Amino acid sequence: MTIKGWAATAANRPLEPFEYDPGPLGADDVEVAVEHCGICHSDASMMSNEWGITTYPIIPGHEVIGKIVALGSNAKGLTIGQRVGIGWASGNCMHCEQCVSGDGNLCPQGQATIVGRHGGFADRVRVQWPWAAPIPDGLSARDAGPLMCGGVTVFTPFRAFDVRPTDRVGVVGIGGLGHLALQFAKAWGCEVTAFTSNDSKADEARGFGAHNIVNSRNEDAIKKAARTLDLLIVTVNVPLDWRAMLATLRPKGRLHFVGAVLEPIPVHAFDIIMTQRSVSGSPNGAPTTTAQMLNFAARHNILPQTEHFPLAKVNDAMQHLLDGKARYRIVLDM
Amino acid sequence: MTIKGWAATAANRPLEPFEYDPGPLGADDVEVAVEHCGICHSDASMMSNEWGITTYPIIPGHEVIGKIVALGSNAKGLTIGQRVGIGWASGNCMHCEQCVSGDGNLCPQGQATIVGRHGGFADRVRVQWPWAAPIPDGLSARDAGPLMCGGVTVFTPFRAFDVRPTDRVGVVGIGGLGHLALQFAKAWGCEVTAFTSNDSKADEARGFGAHNIVNSRNEDAIKKAARTLDLLIVTVNVPLDWRAMLATLRPKGRLHFVGAVLEPIPVHAFDIIMTQRSVSGSPNGAPTTTAQMLNFAARHNILPQTEHFPLAKVNDAMQHLLDGKARYRIVLDM
Repeated sequence: MTIKGWAATAANRPLEPFEYDPGPLGADDVEVAVEHCGICHSDASMMSNEWGITTYPIIPGHEVIGKIVALGSNAKGLTIGQRVGIGWASGNCMHCEQCVSGDGNLCPQGQATIVGRHGGFADRVRVQWPWAAPIPDGLSARDAGPLMCGGVTVFTPFRAFDVRPTDRVGVVGIGGLGHLALQFAKAWGCEVTAFTSNDSKADEARGFGAHNIVNSRNEDAIKKAARTLDLLIVTVNVPLDWRAMLATLRPKGRLHFVGAVLEPIPVHAFDIIMTQRSVSGSPNGAPTTTAQMLNFAARHNILPQTEHFPLAKVNDAMQHLLDGKARYRIVLDM
Repeated sequence: MTIKGWAATAANRPLEPFEYDPGPLGADDVEVAVEHCGICHSDASMMSNEWGITTYPIIPGHEVIGKIVALGSNAKGLTIGQRVGIGWASGNCMHCEQCVSGDGNLCPQGQATIVGRHGGFADRVRVQWPWAAPIPDGLSARDAGPLMCGGVTVFTPFRAFDVRPTDRVGVVGIGGLGHLALQFAKAWGCEVTAFTSNDSKADEARGFGAHNIVNSRNEDAIKKAARTLDLLIVTVNVPLDWRAMLATLRPKGRLHFVGAVLEPIPVHAFDIIMTQRSVSGSPNGAPTTTAQMLNFAARHNILPQTEHFPLAKVNDAMQHLLDGKARYRIVLDM
């Protein structure tokens, strides 16, 4: 019994067909037959070992939509044949303070779908049962995959920090994550500002819900937005003028990172002291947050804008992503 | 009609006797006859123009206890002869979103007692009426001065971020602000950890309320405290190993700056993303927060530990402060 997928065997190598034996199904695990899998920039980062946590060979893929084909003896609340989604997280200890508080995504022993394990560029994938999220009927299975990582990652700060519909929310980077953040912010009732270095995205950003557009590399434009925002969600992973970005926040505002910027962010104490601002971050989302996000997305018709590739063309799809051409999220069909 | 005090006429000069004519009393202002005035490190920073915002001559002093001797025509809720305290802030616009929301300390047009104005190392001082805080009967006027700046500065995060008595709170720097922060945290019901580079302060820190002591320059000791705190209040203004300090926070924890650290604080995105941590700051406190702080201090017998100097010995007192010898707050008596 093997699982067939596409793996990288070393850094900077194309993906190639790969099979592995997953062994007996763990008591807490479920096995999902993959139907669709989104491509996240983190898949590329893991393939090239950018974060130093990759083990090779690695089958990437952590934005899975599929159907449950096997249930471990201890799996709860799920049934064979049920359609579920899988994101970045695939397991937690279930008994630490974070886990019993419902914050399983912050468990120090948390496991990730493609860290030391194989992901969803494959015919099947396994995760612990709390991390297989039932997909509401109203959501298109074909396109919902990117909600499981990109979607919940930008949705989490809305719940974690009790964003209110009267708040003014900015989004830096209008790509896979950002175009979903704009939609969530709009549906949340907020005034929405898109920050993008790519002026050609302005009209589309408005279509996703932005009321205002700011060029994220135009010093004057950023200055004009000074003290206008309550929350600024950063989805990019490249360094920007963070001091200028912080200055766009109103008193008590929050500069919030979900993008894995590698260069340290220099924070000037006076910039946060005089205005009671915060700089923060968050990872994916807890199972409850994921369920809320999926229901919210279904109710508000929020979906990623996707381009589809068959799994056999996964290397073309990865190249399309790395060339910065994805508009806005690539989904692989099995 | 003149006000008599002690002023610096240029950077790095001792204070000398100085008189000025304050002009007619503004409609929103009150005049206070100073009885006692604490010395804050910010007074030294302003005297030496460390922050580039000093205008000379400057009479420092912004931890005033005194009695109201004159009321502007528009001053509300105060009476002649009433004992009040004055802190860092001395005025706000009263009509912006922050002011009408009760956050006058975050008003962009806020005025500070010793920025472009003269402070409390003098026989009298003036502020806008909302910034003259009635002193509860139970508080010693002789020692309450430092609560008005040092006190409310470390108290504000407890209110602003809804600290709970089950939280674990750390305080970095056990000096004028820190020894008050320990007392507030203890009285708030929290588990309290003091971070100090000065081992000789350990016993006193325990006396102020610390349950645990960590040497803030001992890498191993800081590592042992990893993931133990919900809130870490930084009262120092010197650079420390902020990455190690951030690592002492539990998931969802907050590294909070009230000390004016001049060197940018390098924040690594992964350190805040994976654990949903925040880095934040806050200034003094709004009038409501100051009133709550004073009542809380009176109810819990929280007072600074003080050393007293007569105003005529103000230069000796400043030198005592700059030599790092203050245990823990100096108060000038008029």
